[in-house]
Amino acid sequence: MKPCILLQTDFSLTWSAVASMKGVIKIVDPALDVQDICHEIKNFDPWEASMSLNTVEPYWPKGSIFVSVVDPGVGTERKASVALLNDGNYVVTPDNGTLTHLFHRVGVKEIREIDETVNRYRAQEEVSVFHGRDIFAYCAARLASGCITFEQVGREYPVEKIVICEEYHKRPVLGNRSANGFIQSGLKHFGGIQINITNEEWKQCGFRLGDIVHTTITHNGRTVFENDILYHEAFGCVEKSEPILYCGSSRYLCLDCNMDNFMRKYGIESGKEWEIAFAVRKMQL
Amino acid sequence: MKPCILLQTDFSLTWSAVASMKGVIKIVDPALDVQDICHEIKNFDPWEASMSLNTVEPYWPKGSIFVSVVDPGVGTERKASVALLNDGNYVVTPDNGTLTHLFHRVGVKEIREIDETVNRYRAQEEVSVFHGRDIFAYCAARLASGCITFEQVGREYPVEKIVICEEYHKRPVLGNRSANGFIQSGLKHFGGIQINITNEEWKQCGFRLGDIVHTTITHNGRTVFENDILYHEAFGCVEKSEPILYCGSSRYLCLDCNMDNFMRKYGIESGKEWEIAFAVRKMQL
Amino acid sequence: MKPCILLQTDFSLTWSAVASMKGVIKIVDPALDVQDICHEIKNFDPWEASMSLNTVEPYWPKGSIFVSVVDPGVGTERKASVALLNDGNYVVTPDNGTLTHLFHRVGVKEIREIDETVNRYRAQEEVSVFHGRDIFAYCAARLASGCITFEQVGREYPVEKIVICEEYHKRPVLGNRSANGFIQSGLKHFGGIQINITNEEWKQCGFRLGDIVHTTITHNGRTVFENDILYHEAFGCVEKSEPILYCGSSRYLCLDCNMDNFMRKYGIESGKEWEIAFAVRKMQL
Repeated sequence: MKPCILLQTDFSLTWSAVASMKGVIKIVDPALDVQDICHEIKNFDPWEASMSLNTVEPYWPKGSIFVSVVDPGVGTERKASVALLNDGNYVVTPDNGTLTHLFHRVGVKEIREIDETVNRYRAQEEVSVFHGRDIFAYCAARLASGCITFEQVGREYPVEKIVICEEYHKRPVLGNRSANGFIQSGLKHFGGIQINITNEEWKQCGFRLGDIVHTTITHNGRTVFENDILYHEAFGCVEKSEPILYCGSSRYLCLDCNMDNFMRKYGIESGKEWEIAFAVRKMQL
Repeated sequence: MKPCILLQTDFSLTWSAVASMKGVIKIVDPALDVQDICHEIKNFDPWEASMSLNTVEPYWPKGSIFVSVVDPGVGTERKASVALLNDGNYVVTPDNGTLTHLFHRVGVKEIREIDETVNRYRAQEEVSVFHGRDIFAYCAARLASGCITFEQVGREYPVEKIVICEEYHKRPVLGNRSANGFIQSGLKHFGGIQINITNEEWKQCGFRLGDIVHTTITHNGRTVFENDILYHEAFGCVEKSEPILYCGSSRYLCLDCNMDNFMRKYGIESGKEWEIAFAVRKMQL
Repeated sequence: MKPCILLQTDFSLTWSAVASMKGVIKIVDPALDVQDICHEIKNFDPWEASMSLNTVEPYWPKGSIFVSVVDPGVGTERKASVALLNDGNYVVTPDNGTLTHLFHRVGVKEIREIDETVNRYRAQEEVSVFHGRDIFAYCAARLASGCITFEQVGREYPVEKIVICEEYHKRPVLGNRSANGFIQSGLKHFGGIQINITNEEWKQCGFRLGDIVHTTITHNGRTVFENDILYHEAFGCVEKSEPILYCGSSRYLCLDCNMDNFMRKYGIESGKEWEIAFAVRKMQL
């Protein structure tokens, strides 16, 4: 079977842009299987795009082709690229920070800049604003269908040149049953937050299920939340509306309320100016 | 052909959770056809999940596998189950009320609790909060692809033990061209409401197309709407913005405005504290 | 391979209506490939439906079957039709203006009214409000799967009788490096607007990349925006938040802000009472 193509954008599904991308893929090869990751990435935000790709990437068959189009620089000099990851998956994306998390977790084996003279769709009327359709979707389809090899995508360039989001350089500080980081993402739908501390790092700090963790959130240095929170496995471990810390399916530490919206309840947002500090208050022995 | 898998959740499509469910299904068997029912079920509300399943279930080929993940009790003791309906369809869901309407309309032939020792996906890093991906989607895929038989899902338990939503026990009162019920669901997008009176029950009360029906809505006993409304077939039977009663495609009585939003216009919501009474005012002879 | 079916509605994905349409298609033929265009067409607005179809139509394989259900007249006398376009694509739609743009750009070769005695799905309980499922999706599936020929859709009628939206009759005025039109569509997600002047008409007026264009927007005659704007290829040609005119992928002239929301920033909406005038201020030589 041919590899699946997975689409992620900040286009939303409120207009036909994603459908045009899918259509061009079907023009290349009607038998290709195209699926959606998410089309509500925060507008123009490669950092969010990078986290979303990183969350979903392990849960698709190896060899899948991920297309991410969050592209504030469309039509400027940023590279349009295809990365081959160390685990055999491909990512087709503007090289603008979108590869940040996958670069660090999985590793990029090889990256190539898309050769537009070959791998660009020539629409009836050429425009310069829809590379999602004309370059990224089209090139992904050619790769998935076997029209081109990975080498035929275009010229290789050094993986060291891959653009990394500056947020990534703000590293968490890991202690002994204490940790400091920032809120790297907020999930508006349910209201939970994700911290830039991996589940693994969290466990290496020595936190154990059942710990009560003193948690402080500051926004630009001002304290906006301070509370003792249970660290446990599942929402059901606390009463309705109570906050809980848990290891998230994104592989990052998460904080949420049981059946309630933590972000809305406490006026919390995400970004690197939203710092969060954890210190165990009462240990689970 | 293998049966189709249909997904319904309260996750929304604003992040990648649904995509991770689909990916795990494709890891089990890339040839499986996965489709969406709706991912905007009211958060944590098995009653809404039950109604949505009931609405869509007759309109898919028999043998389809419906996966519903509206799961406030994730990680607690509620059962993760697969029900075989009397019509040959399957429902994979937490047994938390989601089966209410299908249990009563179609009937459950057999129900089994998912054996997590066999039918749980072992992700790289195990977490306890994403049963939608690790248990429900994964088990559905194994069943759809033929990796396991229905018997191999897990231990059978009596259908009498299936959890029924308490809302269901508030039954409508059916009279002679009169009826009392409550607003069991509201469709925010178009603004129509659905009453807990089936089209069949409504007709059995003796209402006929063309009747003018005196309609009263009370919220916790306080009257919030009172008007004479035409019962007819289609919106076009009334002027723009006028309310109309009709037999809905959900198989329940509906009330809506022609090209206008009834709920917003009159400040109406849904739930069992929103009661509604009908009495024919002017009969269609 | 069988042709793909593409769905467009104003139903939203917040409930199961679209899923019921897909299910009925799969009942006709489980092997059919069904994809979404967009389900957030402005409620009850065939004009928006027409523009959306026109935007996406060239980017799918020829022979595709487009189903558009934006149908304020459901259950009234408007025709339920299937149009065969000059380029070989089909459109299944209420004949209520939805064909406006395709009629003028691609041309309709032949149109037939759906014969409901043959091409209507007989659900368990018949209702009159869901032609999207029972007529449009069902008939499209029968056509796509080869159950019926185009001739068997129903009786042909003259293409001259196709309903055209009245908005279309308000034509743009094209001058020498000047033009007048109206805002035919607004894209709330990114905040850009689309003018009823095609990219081709715009170029025929003599505008060139690099021109500075004096732009005036009036709402019912009152000026609400007036500014000199660069006409160029890509957002990156102006500073962040600055407005730019460009040839859109919809094949119509567009105005947007670079990484900002033009509509929200300036309080602009769409519709034929929103007129816009362009006159070159500083020419690109």
